[in-house]
This record gives sequence, structure tokens and C-alpha cells, in this order.
Amino acid sequence: MIDFETAFPGSRKVYEPRAIALTPAGPQATLQVPMREVSLSGGEPSLRLYDTSGPQGHDVRGGLPKLREPWIEARRRTGVVGTQLYYARRGEVTPEMEFIAVREGLPAEFVRTEVARGRAIIPANINHLELEPMIIGRNFLVKINANIGNSAVKSSIEDEVEKLQWATLWGADTVMDLSTGKNIHETREWIVRNSAVPIGTVPIYQALEKVGGSPEDLTWEVYRDTLVEQCEQGVDYFTVHAGVLLRYVPMTARRLTGIVSRGGSILAKWCLAHHKENFLYTHYREICEIMRAYDVSFSLGDGLRPGSIADANDEAQFAELKTQGELTKIAWEYDVQVMNEGPGHVPMHLIKENMEKQLEWCEEAPFYTLGPLTTDVAPGYDHITSAIGAAMIGWYGTAMLCYVTPKEHLGLPNRDDVKAGVIAYKIAAHAADLAKGHPRAQVWDDALSKARFDFRWEDQFNLAMDPITARAYHDETLPADGAKVAHFCSMCGPKFCSMELTQQVREYAAANKLTDVDALRAGMQEKSTEFRREGEIYVKESV
Amino acid sequence: MIDFETAFPGSRKVYEPRAIALTPAGPQATLQVPMREVSLSGGEPSLRLYDTSGPQGHDVRGGLPKLREPWIEARRRTGVVGTQLYYARRGEVTPEMEFIAVREGLPAEFVRTEVARGRAIIPANINHLELEPMIIGRNFLVKINANIGNSAVKSSIEDEVEKLQWATLWGADTVMDLSTGKNIHETREWIVRNSAVPIGTVPIYQALEKVGGSPEDLTWEVYRDTLVEQCEQGVDYFTVHAGVLLRYVPMTARRLTGIVSRGGSILAKWCLAHHKENFLYTHYREICEIMRAYDVSFSLGDGLRPGSIADANDEAQFAELKTQGELTKIAWEYDVQVMNEGPGHVPMHLIKENMEKQLEWCEEAPFYTLGPLTTDVAPGYDHITSAIGAAMIGWYGTAMLCYVTPKEHLGLPNRDDVKAGVIAYKIAAHAADLAKGHPRAQVWDDALSKARFDFRWEDQFNLAMDPITARAYHDETLPADGAKVAHFCSMCGPKFCSMELTQQVREYAAANKLTDVDALRAGMQEKSTEFRREGEIYVKESV
Repeated sequence: MIDFETAFPGSRKVYEPRAIALTPAGPQATLQVPMREVSLSGGEPSLRLYDTSGPQGHDVRGGLPKLREPWIEARRRTGVVGTQLYYARRGEVTPEMEFIAVREGLPAEFVRTEVARGRAIIPANINHLELEPMIIGRNFLVKINANIGNSAVKSSIEDEVEKLQWATLWGADTVMDLSTGKNIHETREWIVRNSAVPIGTVPIYQALEKVGGSPEDLTWEVYRDTLVEQCEQGVDYFTVHAGVLLRYVPMTARRLTGIVSRGGSILAKWCLAHHKENFLYTHYREICEIMRAYDVSFSLGDGLRPGSIADANDEAQFAELKTQGELTKIAWEYDVQVMNEGPGHVPMHLIKENMEKQLEWCEEAPFYTLGPLTTDVAPGYDHITSAIGAAMIGWYGTAMLCYVTPKEHLGLPNRDDVKAGVIAYKIAAHAADLAKGHPRAQVWDDALSKARFDFRWEDQFNLAMDPITARAYHDETLPADGAKVAHFCSMCGPKFCSMELTQQVREYAAANKLTDVDALRAGMQEKSTEFRREGEIYVKESV
Repeated sequence: MIDFETAFPGSRKVYEPRAIALTPAGPQATLQVPMREVSLSGGEPSLRLYDTSGPQGHDVRGGLPKLREPWIEARRRTGVVGTQLYYARRGEVTPEMEFIAVREGLPAEFVRTEVARGRAIIPANINHLELEPMIIGRNFLVKINANIGNSAVKSSIEDEVEKLQWATLWGADTVMDLSTGKNIHETREWIVRNSAVPIGTVPIYQALEKVGGSPEDLTWEVYRDTLVEQCEQGVDYFTVHAGVLLRYVPMTARRLTGIVSRGGSILAKWCLAHHKENFLYTHYREICEIMRAYDVSFSLGDGLRPGSIADANDEAQFAELKTQGELTKIAWEYDVQVMNEGPGHVPMHLIKENMEKQLEWCEEAPFYTLGPLTTDVAPGYDHITSAIGAAMIGWYGTAMLCYVTPKEHLGLPNRDDVKAGVIAYKIAAHAADLAKGHPRAQVWDDALSKARFDFRWEDQFNLAMDPITARAYHDETLPADGAKVAHFCSMCGPKFCSMELTQQVREYAAANKLTDVDALRAGMQEKSTEFRREGEIYVKESV
């Protein structure tokens, strides 16, 4: 494993303090909100970026520090531990909301109103004390999720904890543990205790293991006990496929690729085998009561999402989405926070309809999509086919993007695949933040582009989403240290460089206090003479 | 180098014949139009895909067969050798148009009318006899360009020819030779003689070498001679930065990243040094006359394109685009074909404006964009930051996408980078074709998704854009040959598989002749019983 310092040279973790009251009339405390601060040269101010990497250097066996312990303690002393939605609706700003306000650079009161409206969620199980709170909602930075988890075929607990740390180091905002094999409980325990980001699961996977792997043997009781078990451990959100209704299953029969969601297929099989309505639907209010007690958020699953371009936006998909909308409103009755899962495989021209219908039918609850993949023809590159769709749907309003790795459809992701998936999705999310005009987004682009234009190579690398790769690619062609201060790069070589020319024009304008186009034009004749006199200034600086 | 058979297992090159007349009253001939045919198993019909790989197995020193020699010969015998636009306007369908009609699956007369309208171009220098003609226009498949070329810093002629073959093997529709170092003429000669795709260049680069690398020493005469030299060699399109006007240069002074185009900066410097209007603009009609004589197409450069998110869609950029529009109409007076180059770095919400203005100001001449990159913060991954923008602008109507490799901004691309760039852009182009509803697009996705759903693993690999990578990723987790026929994959493992479940539902529907949802629903009770009786059918097929 590489650590924070190695991954991000020139950056350090800093903590922004914020004084708060833990409860409205309760004890005072000072939050310490993590940021990645990139130091720059050339007199440029350092830049603070959102940081998901979590506390560093802790022994995995001991878990992370329990940041939220005093918060939850203080809340318990008031006699009631409600959900974030409960407090938001009462007009109460929680420490979690304050923490998020600092991270996002927005007023805490705005955080509260968005949660109260159901337009954003703070997945924060009261038993996940190691959590650094974050928010998922379309008026905040777009978030990304990375899936990890062992399967019957491969991988161990250690591998999974390392994948968690690796994914969050590169920027995963939440992590889903999709384990399906042995040791599900123990794997999850290690993951939650070592995670500063919210952990999501699909409880039906573990329930299925408990009944020996046969969907038709699933019962409400086994599922309920599994929910409680996972609530106790501190899982922050559950994918619940309560919208896969018996009457929707036949709608998938003439699809090109039928049902491609694991959870969806398990429930469909159960429904068919018993010819009964989905027990997650019939017991939905009991599920809400359990999740309320721990403040676990719903991620209402889309078990009937399309698995191919041919099946996008069809009857089955939208029937389920409508039911997700009904279920959203029921959860809100219980003060349970909700987001909705979305597709999948969707060609570009059909993406917007997904967002519009979700906003309408689910009353603006956050949307959480898997890609979508914009074509089926490039297995091995589905981080790219899907980053295209993810960026677009993020711009349209999706709050969180579930990553897709290059191994999608082919195999289990290794470390390199996890990183490739995370980076592709950080790109998609940031592109969406830019397009939405998030106030904290473009400052990063501007800092990097300014460094590029000023030939501050080290700053350019250090500001990159993946500094190590940026530097390594540069050094392949121009490894000499001198090239790090050169006023050119290997693309154009030392003899002429477009950026260098422009700098000359600009310096000239500044020196002559030319502040508008007409004045500059007037000064051009002088510049012409100077250019001819001085010759190729920048050639002096070649290595 | 790997060859066609190794790159595309299960595929072979086939040739679709088409009988034509070489001139309206001239000799008959039969075109042989190349396709990649993918053989499938399970009784599925084979699938034919557009193929850019060119004739295989030829000695580089001898060059490719001169496919167009008899066409041009026949044309010469009529006394006039016009441009494709000339013939199109006269109502004459050329062999090039017939060839394209077969490739695109569209009527030859439609090809002709699009060229006549200026909405599509066929870059086909009368001296590039090795060319397999292709078309660039928004009512055809979206095309991609790969840049190669040596620079002062690195690379040799052999490397460049190999990059050409490599880029077209993976799907580059045109290749630009951007060489700036030594041996520009010789490198280009080898490239043209070995290229079945159109070759583009930026003649100002070679002109600059001829005057020792100082932009201010450039003259119209040196440039003109360079144009003629390259026309004679068979270059199919020229990037000409005739829209970089003296009065636009000051508009870039307060940009974050000034001028980032090499050609743009050379011309800007020339204009400043002499305080004169761009000589490409003042001699534009003479340029048109030269290019008409060889049927070389314009790619009107965007020398003032934005080099960062901050500079997107600014005054300088759009001022030049308007001038590109004027120049387009002048070229059309000479029957010279034209496309327009576009940006660059543009956040998602500003992409559409680029397309709309270009369509309006340049009267629907094909647009040819570099990306655009949708964020600046991920050097090392700009094939992805830009594939997002490329897919979107392709959907909006851009006819050709200039690839960006992972090395963009950092160094010169090697073979792996060229492939990564080409594949990312083939994905973007195909996603755009799907979104535009091109009649030949979705059949590929459907064939691959059906193979996936049917567990025809070999077919899934063979249909992939990059079969070798798809297979390698699968084999990392499940290398056994048995896994290639398994009815599951490593993601869910053998115990439950969503696709397998759906197949059972479908088989049941087919066996019982259930053709609509109500009938299926009626049959559910029976299915329920059967499921319970048979148990886990698919477990029998696990390896």
C-alpha cells in the first residue's frame, strides 16, 4: 500500500476547525474537518481540496479513531437518537451537518434544509463512530461510490480492507461491501471499523448465504435478522430491492438481457417460486422502523435496471422507478433518509429521461446511478463507456455515481482496476461539478491550468488527480530534472512553444499597463519591433 | 506489431463487391470494400463491422496497392480531374462515393448530395492512390483521427509508420502527421504510401523548419512551396490557421492559458512581429487554387481554441470561428472541400454552444474537434476527460473527433498510449452513433449483449472493440477453459447468476408460447411449481 504522502507529493492533510455545540443546549466541541492542501510554488496560494482518504497510519486491527462517539453520546443524553432527517425537520443542525458544511464550503443551515427536504442524505449509522460525515444530494459536490467485496470465487478479508483504503485514498466517497462468499460478517466488521466513509451493503446477499444460496428459501425473518445484524455493525446504507414487484417480472421476459441485477434476480426468483409479492415490499414499513432506529439510509435498488442498450428506459425499468417513488415517500414518514438507485446501460440520448422521471416520481430524493454505460461494445473499457454517461447524468442532477471498473462484465477488479475506476469516476463527478457551476469546482482547474501555463511542472503534477501517473508520463519522454523547469515540453519541443509565446504577449501587456483590447492593439507596433530585436527569448531556457 | 488476425480473433477481412462505372460513360469496374466480419457461434449470423485496418501483409518499402490508380486514370481521360465537391455538384457519383456508400450502408446518391451540400467531405488527394475512401459528415458514422509524428525531441520514421498501422488497426479513420523535427518530407512519404486512411498535416510546421524555426521569418512563398510539395506527395487534408487574425491576438492576452495551438501561436507571433495580417488569410484564395488542383480538403484550424476550462467559449475563440465560416464559403467557391476544427477544453454545459455556432456560422460544414476535455485536473487521463466531451459533441453533430492520448500535456504518446487514445475515441464515436440513431450502430451492441446473455464468452470477446483485452481480463479471474462455457462469471459466482435466472423465465415463456405480459402472468403459478420441483438447474453447469 502506498500512503497519503506518497500518493500526493506536495500535499498534506490539514484540518479546518469549527466550533459547535454537540446538541442545541449541549456541550461545546471543535470539529476538525480534513482537507488535502496542495502547496504551490511561484508565490501561488496553496489550494485545499476535498479529502476522503481518512485518518492515516492506524493499525487495522484497532480500527480508526471514533470521531463521532462524543456526538452520539451527547445525543443519547437528550433521551432520543433520531435520524439526520428527524433533526433536520425539527430545525436542528447536527454536528454531522456542521462537518459537511465545512467540507462543502456551504452554510450549515443550507445543509439542514436540503436534508429536511429529502433532497440530500447523510448516510451515518449511529454505530459507525469512525465516520467522517458526508452528504449526497444534487446541490452538493457529486459523489462517487466504489464497490468492493469478496465472492465465492476469490479474495480475502485483508484484500478487502486494503481495497477500501485504496479506493478512499484516490477519492471514493462511499464504499459498498458486496461480499457474497464466506466470512461476510467478519469482512464487514473489519471494513466498517476501518472506514471513514459511509459503507453500503446489499443485505439480501448475506440473507441468501444464510439459507444456503437458494433464493426460494429466503424468508422475511432471515432477512430481518440480517438487517438488524448489519445495523448493529454500523452499515450506513442498505440497497433494498423493494420495488421488484411480482407483476413487473414478466415485463423482462422479452428483453435482450432480462434481469442483470443480482438482487433483482434473487427477488424475482423468490416471487416466481412462491407466486407471492416481494417480501421486501410487503414488509417495507417494518424495514423502515429498523433502519430508523440506527439512522441507516435507504438506497432503493433498481433490480430491473437495463443490462444493455437495447433494454434501456423500458416498461420494466420505469415501472420499478415509479414504485421506488412510492417507497421513498413511505420512508420519509418514518424520518428515514432515502436515495434511489438508477441504471445501468443507457445510450446518451435516453439518459436525461432517467433523471427527469426520477426527480418527478421520487420527489427529488438523491439519485445514485451505476454509470450509465453508453455502449455495450467495449468490455475491458467500461470505466470509459460509463464515465461518459456518469458525467452527463451527474450534470443533469444525479447526486452519486457508482463506479465501474475496467473488469466490469469480465472479472473481479484488482487494485489497479479499483484505482482506474475511481479516477475515471472522480473525473466524471468533477466534470459534472464544473458543468453545474459548483462554487468550489473551477478553482481547481484554474490552479492546474495556471501552473501548466507558467511551466510550474511540479505544481502541475501535484495538483493532478493522480500526481504519480502525471509525473511518470512526463518523465518517460523528458526525465531530466532540468525539464521540470523548462519552458517547453516534449510535445512541441524547445524551438517553439505556444504557451511561451502567449506569455510574452501578456508580459508585454502588463509592463505597458494595457488593460483593454484597443490599447493592446495600439501597442502592437512596438511589440513587433521588440520581438525582432530580442529574437527567441525562450530558447535561452532550453535544457 | 500484431496483425489483424491476432488483434481480432474470430474475425476475418471480407470484401463487399460493388459494380460501378469509373466515369459516367467510362469503363466498368468492381469495387472491393473492406469489412471486418466477426463469426459467431450458437447459430447466430456473422456480423460485419466497419474496417479501417487497410490491406495487410505488404512490405512497407513497397507501400500499399494503388487502389485508386484506375479511377484517377479514367478521370484524367475525361480531360478534367476535379474535386469530389466538383463532381458532387455536377450530379456525378464518383467511385469514391460508391465505395463510401458500401462502407456506410447508405445510398451513393445520398453520399453525393451530402458532399454537394458541403455537409460532408471525402478527403482524397488525387495523388493518394493507396486510399480506401471514407467520408466525414454528421449524417454518417462519427469518425476519429489519431495524431502521430516525430518531434525534435524523439522518434524515428519507422516508429511513425508503425504508429500509423497500429492506430488504423484499432480503428483510426484518419491520421495526422504532425512531425516537426528532422526528415519531415521523408517521414510523410513513408506514411502516405503505407496509408489506406486519409492523411492530414499542418503545413506551417514544415514551412517553419525551412526557415530555421523562427516564426517571423516565415513567408508566403515558403509556405506556398510547402503546400505544393505536400499536395504532390498525396496529403489528403491540411490544417490551415487562416482564421488567426491580427486583431484577434490581443483578445487572448487576458486568458488564463493564452494561445495553446502550435499553429495558432506561430501565426500570432508572425502577425505581431510584422504587424501585418496573417498571410494565410491574405493569400487564402491562392491556397484554394492549389488545393483544388489536388483535391486536398481544408481543415480550417482553430488556432485560438481554449487551452483551459477558464478560457472556453470566449471572444477570441468565437471571433476565429466566425472567420472560419467566411473562409468556408470562399473555399466552396473553388469547389474545395472544407471541415472546421474546434476545441479543446470546454466544460460540459458549454459544449453544445460550440456545435450550434459552428453549424450556423460555417453553414453545416463538418466539425472536427479535439475532445473537448471536460476538466483540466486529470493530466495522465485526458483520453477520459476528453472522451466525455467527444461523445457529447459527436452526438450533437461533430463529424470527426481528434483523439487525445493519456500523455496529452505530458509527453509523446507511445504505442500503448496511441491504442488507449484510439479505443477511448472509438467508444466516444460509437456512443455518439448510437445516440444519433445511425442505422448500423446498435446492431453491434445487440450482438455483443446477446452473446453476453447467452454466455457465449468467446463471441463476447470476439465482438469487443478490443478482444485481446476483454479475454485477458476475464482470464485473470477464471482462466480455465471450462469457464468459457460456464453459465456464470466471476462477479456473482456459480451459486446465483441473474442472467441465468432470466433465461429460465424466457425459456418458459417460449415453451408455453406466452407472447404477452398477461399471458406470462397467468403462467406464473405453473412456473412457481416447476422452479420448486427442479431446484437449481444452473448449478449443474458450474465448473
